[in-house]
Amino acid sequence: MLIVVMEKHAPVRQIGAVLKEIEGLGLQPHLSRGEHQTVIGCMLSGESEPVKSRLGTMEGVERVFPASRPYRLASREFRPEDSLFHISGVPVGSSRLAMMAGPCAVESHAQLMAVAEVLTASKVPFLRGGAYKPRSSPYSFQGLGPKGLELLAEVKSRTGLRIVTECLTTGDVELVARYADVIQVGARNMQNFALLQELGRCRVPVLLKRGMMSSLEELLMSAEYILSKGNSQVMLCERGIRTFEQATRNTLDISAVPVLKRLTHLPVIVDPSHAAGDRALVPSLALAAVAAGADGLIVETHPDPDRSVSDAAQALSLQAFAELMQRSEEVAKAVGRSFYN
Amino acid sequence: MLIVVMEKHAPVRQIGAVLKEIEGLGLQPHLSRGEHQTVIGCMLSGESEPVKSRLGTMEGVERVFPASRPYRLASREFRPEDSLFHISGVPVGSSRLAMMAGPCAVESHAQLMAVAEVLTASKVPFLRGGAYKPRSSPYSFQGLGPKGLELLAEVKSRTGLRIVTECLTTGDVELVARYADVIQVGARNMQNFALLQELGRCRVPVLLKRGMMSSLEELLMSAEYILSKGNSQVMLCERGIRTFEQATRNTLDISAVPVLKRLTHLPVIVDPSHAAGDRALVPSLALAAVAAGADGLIVETHPDPDRSVSDAAQALSLQAFAELMQRSEEVAKAVGRSFYN
Amino acid sequence: MLIVVMEKHAPVRQIGAVLKEIEGLGLQPHLSRGEHQTVIGCMLSGESEPVKSRLGTMEGVERVFPASRPYRLASREFRPEDSLFHISGVPVGSSRLAMMAGPCAVESHAQLMAVAEVLTASKVPFLRGGAYKPRSSPYSFQGLGPKGLELLAEVKSRTGLRIVTECLTTGDVELVARYADVIQVGARNMQNFALLQELGRCRVPVLLKRGMMSSLEELLMSAEYILSKGNSQVMLCERGIRTFEQATRNTLDISAVPVLKRLTHLPVIVDPSHAAGDRALVPSLALAAVAAGADGLIVETHPDPDRSVSDAAQALSLQAFAELMQRSEEVAKAVGRSFYN
Amino acid sequence: MLIVVMEKHAPVRQIGAVLKEIEGLGLQPHLSRGEHQTVIGCMLSGESEPVKSRLGTMEGVERVFPASRPYRLASREFRPEDSLFHISGVPVGSSRLAMMAGPCAVESHAQLMAVAEVLTASKVPFLRGGAYKPRSSPYSFQGLGPKGLELLAEVKSRTGLRIVTECLTTGDVELVARYADVIQVGARNMQNFALLQELGRCRVPVLLKRGMMSSLEELLMSAEYILSKGNSQVMLCERGIRTFEQATRNTLDISAVPVLKRLTHLPVIVDPSHAAGDRALVPSLALAAVAAGADGLIVETHPDPDRSVSDAAQALSLQAFAELMQRSEEVAKAVGRSFYN
Repeated sequence: MLIVVMEKHAPVRQIGAVLKEIEGLGLQPHLSRGEHQTVIGCMLSGESEPVKSRLGTMEGVERVFPASRPYRLASREFRPEDSLFHISGVPVGSSRLAMMAGPCAVESHAQLMAVAEVLTASKVPFLRGGAYKPRSSPYSFQGLGPKGLELLAEVKSRTGLRIVTECLTTGDVELVARYADVIQVGARNMQNFALLQELGRCRVPVLLKRGMMSSLEELLMSAEYILSKGNSQVMLCERGIRTFEQATRNTLDISAVPVLKRLTHLPVIVDPSHAAGDRALVPSLALAAVAAGADGLIVETHPDPDRSVSDAAQALSLQAFAELMQRSEEVAKAVGRSFYN
Repeated sequence: MLIVVMEKHAPVRQIGAVLKEIEGLGLQPHLSRGEHQTVIGCMLSGESEPVKSRLGTMEGVERVFPASRPYRLASREFRPEDSLFHISGVPVGSSRLAMMAGPCAVESHAQLMAVAEVLTASKVPFLRGGAYKPRSSPYSFQGLGPKGLELLAEVKSRTGLRIVTECLTTGDVELVARYADVIQVGARNMQNFALLQELGRCRVPVLLKRGMMSSLEELLMSAEYILSKGNSQVMLCERGIRTFEQATRNTLDISAVPVLKRLTHLPVIVDPSHAAGDRALVPSLALAAVAAGADGLIVETHPDPDRSVSDAAQALSLQAFAELMQRSEEVAKAVGRSFYN
Repeated sequence: MLIVVMEKHAPVRQIGAVLKEIEGLGLQPHLSRGEHQTVIGCMLSGESEPVKSRLGTMEGVERVFPASRPYRLASREFRPEDSLFHISGVPVGSSRLAMMAGPCAVESHAQLMAVAEVLTASKVPFLRGGAYKPRSSPYSFQGLGPKGLELLAEVKSRTGLRIVTECLTTGDVELVARYADVIQVGARNMQNFALLQELGRCRVPVLLKRGMMSSLEELLMSAEYILSKGNSQVMLCERGIRTFEQATRNTLDISAVPVLKRLTHLPVIVDPSHAAGDRALVPSLALAAVAAGADGLIVETHPDPDRSVSDAAQALSLQAFAELMQRSEEVAKAVGRSFYN
Repeated sequence: MLIVVMEKHAPVRQIGAVLKEIEGLGLQPHLSRGEHQTVIGCMLSGESEPVKSRLGTMEGVERVFPASRPYRLASREFRPEDSLFHISGVPVGSSRLAMMAGPCAVESHAQLMAVAEVLTASKVPFLRGGAYKPRSSPYSFQGLGPKGLELLAEVKSRTGLRIVTECLTTGDVELVARYADVIQVGARNMQNFALLQELGRCRVPVLLKRGMMSSLEELLMSAEYILSKGNSQVMLCERGIRTFEQATRNTLDISAVPVLKRLTHLPVIVDPSHAAGDRALVPSLALAAVAAGADGLIVETHPDPDRSVSDAAQALSLQAFAELMQRSEEVAKAVGRSFYN
């Protein structure tokens, strides 16, 4: 495949001409229109050189290159320096780490306020909490929905905490985007390409979780879906993969941190809670992630973990979370970094 | 969790009373309304017995039981005999096996007609072909879309072949349902719960592919999502899982056939093409699936495999497919079954 | 690496000269002496061409080639036609399949005779049974040892059944070789290279089981260890690999059959019992293996499966085994083959 | 199974009486004699209570308990506090971490001395280096053998560094034990039970590497083999497992550290080099291991990594190693520990 990058703000006329040329060569063009830039993929059946020459000289074409790696905008080659973006004032992707914490599911105002109090005291900038929950069973609690979003909004207005919450379907993107500072894509949706494209068209930063049996290359290609539609604020999240080992819920692939930092400029967040599935293991994994070079953590904590409506086993008590926050800061300092607060 | 099964056609008033009672106990009800029947899940936080007694005697309640296995409608306990349904006249789930074959992606009228001719000659009842293609890369060919559906419709009207085609998003369900005899859910969408629920509300039979990272229990729970919304015509499809072995694209989990036949009444179809990723291996895997007790096969074949726009390496030539059909019939006979034709 | 194949019966003087030459070039020779032939591996640090020319013209050198695939004697390139060898009169690797059956562990004379009676009635040529058992726990029953070998010998002398039994350590090879018609290498020993080499030096055919974590390439390289020492009678055995799926004890990699048949000339046997870990699944997997092109099966059967001292869950009753034998013959016939009897 | 623990130094007469009693009950005893203590496993076929009462009152029996977990001597229940043992004066298993470093394979005196100089300067107590190398291919360099052991001994006598080196076969245990301060069991030998038992009978501490597809429970059971023969100085080593992810050679299972620390009193060492298979990733993984609570690291370093005869890609240069040592100390300090030096 060839990637044809059009100049920024290239007029529709020029874009149309390139599409026509590709079809005239008997090839299949694939159009990706971001806000700032249009990219055209061109599937080849034979030699790439003649096609590359032909397209490279057309009006409005910035450059043409073969997609040696299947992702492009997500790659380090495309952008050698780390991405750094500000999410409602919080820098992510810099030398400062971002802590995101909160309950698996939004349950009540009281629950959220109890969590928020501890987060504020620990100077944690992001509150996570699910209003929509993807559940393996149709009979399980599926989240409070819009009511949950309202509860998050209330806590935000009282505390200033930025909200991280999941969106499950294309139909909900617009609504969730009105409430969220960061929209989370869950592991099961990592290859829900329609959802990724919809999120690419919105302006809210995205936390993209790795599928539990997805390769790092596939994770980067899913990020590419979002980036290619014009949303450049994508954070990648390692949350454990499936392996034969049954001692933990998933196997945290800690190597994903240095591997991703080499391949991509996007920030890498680690979720030790879903990886472990057991709160006793969460602190060790969180500290390991900081030491390995992660740009942030997303951790489950709950005022009364054993009464959590979902994933009870892996949520830290608020006190255990506060302790972890302190220990994480020590390790961050040891590797020359610090948490944003 | 407790499952409360309401009597068929229980009036809304009775359903509402049960919901109220559950909430009155401080518990969370989860409502699943199918066309024929309403099922209410009730999450427990403590003992199940008192709740079970309380709900079991209410008006309109057929029975209450604990969800020992997380799926219910899909289980053999719920329906001891094999499901048998007729798809546009073709029985699926009986002693007769269903063959589904065709190209990965719909490319042109000529391509489809070349395939259709061979299928008709081999008395194959189902033509498969993708109008919408889920692709890891945003720059890859994503299918002809509605145009592809039209091409399938033309071939159907000329040949009588039933159409199996994939639907990727909730928004396309209505359109695809107008053209398809069977709607396929791809491996990457096995846990796209919104899509499953939408398919549960439509009347078209569903071929549900196992996610490449999904356990058989999760596959059954995804089937439960569809069944619980009222669509009882679900076929399960084993298509290979991810393992450490790299000699094949995926590892065909042949044991899935007898395991699923024991756990569920739903028909089990095997896709040897995506499992192998290599056409030379497809016949062996197809024959193995028939010998293991599969209720059908879905196989990729293409008039000119090396020029296929996607998954070229795994498509059989039309001649190789015709030979495989013959050999499959021999093996089916050896295990006391036959293909529908 | 270069492989230097010496002429058959090349004198020690010539072999020594080649070794000296390699060392003179500052390279590391690796000597493999079989009974019939000596092969010298030569690790390269730079260009291969000059070294290849230099060695290729030396006295006693048959040919020199780069090890493009890491195994050589096991490869189809080395020997395009299927290996066929006779084990105490039974042809293995031909159009006739070999059935091997018996208990996991040898327990008593009565137990073995009960099994042997059914095998004889079903015309099965091989009796399998473990005198030495590799067990994960040091506290588990480890087999009857030499006493078990004696029991197998008795049954052999009465019935003519050929014996398949496992050897765990280099120290036992000589003893086991006196009793066994086929020596089995268990999955946990697939990369016990000292054991493989010792078996390479003995004259008894070997059944080499795939490690539960080993790739097919590694399996072939382990076969190469045996072949390179001069024992050419090696059978490969697929017995299930470890994956995330927990519904079966292991995941039978049915694709291993056609993949191995393409890569190697060695016979491929399938063990459905250890793969499934559940006797109800064994017949489906056995039939699948025959349909996929396996050259034989090795199946656990026991006169009283529930009282088996090990692996009780996966042993077939004698009656179930006799039925499976019949059904396997039907499937073999459907794919143009038959069982030896 | 029941475990019968005999009193320390129970006379042979009492042990014999227990064995006889078990056989008299129609059960199978399994004897494990360590130097200090004898343990008898007793396989049950029915109820455990009557057997337990009968044996528990016999002379010389300390206690009898059911093997709820299949390992016992390795468990935290057996020994609640961390094991701490001194290896040639170096405490392992305490608050001080042990660093082990050196080349994959011993190549020459000059190579070892170059490494030793840097280790000494960094106050690293252990030098690792393989004299015997397990290799997938019979044609690969298999180590210098006894010559390699001599080279290690020379460096030890000059520098005082303790030696960690691998033993591949039972036949070599006696020889290797004369040179090694720690004998390493490689991943491929984790279930070579004859080797484990032989090492259980020797007095040299053992570094037991996890098999690349072995569960943590199996690792503990392999440790139990060694412990049950009387050698209590066993260190466990996580070195990466096999998964579907191909971006790294293996997937470092960082969760193994806190999981093992919970289940066992034995020290846990991490090998980031074999996990990563890529030197650029080694520092991140090493720091992660320290943060996660490992009791030590074993790291590959080489004076000229690109000319290493094996595993070149994963060896750190001596300078990179020295830097890693410093950074590791910083992280150790952040989690309240320090390296021995």
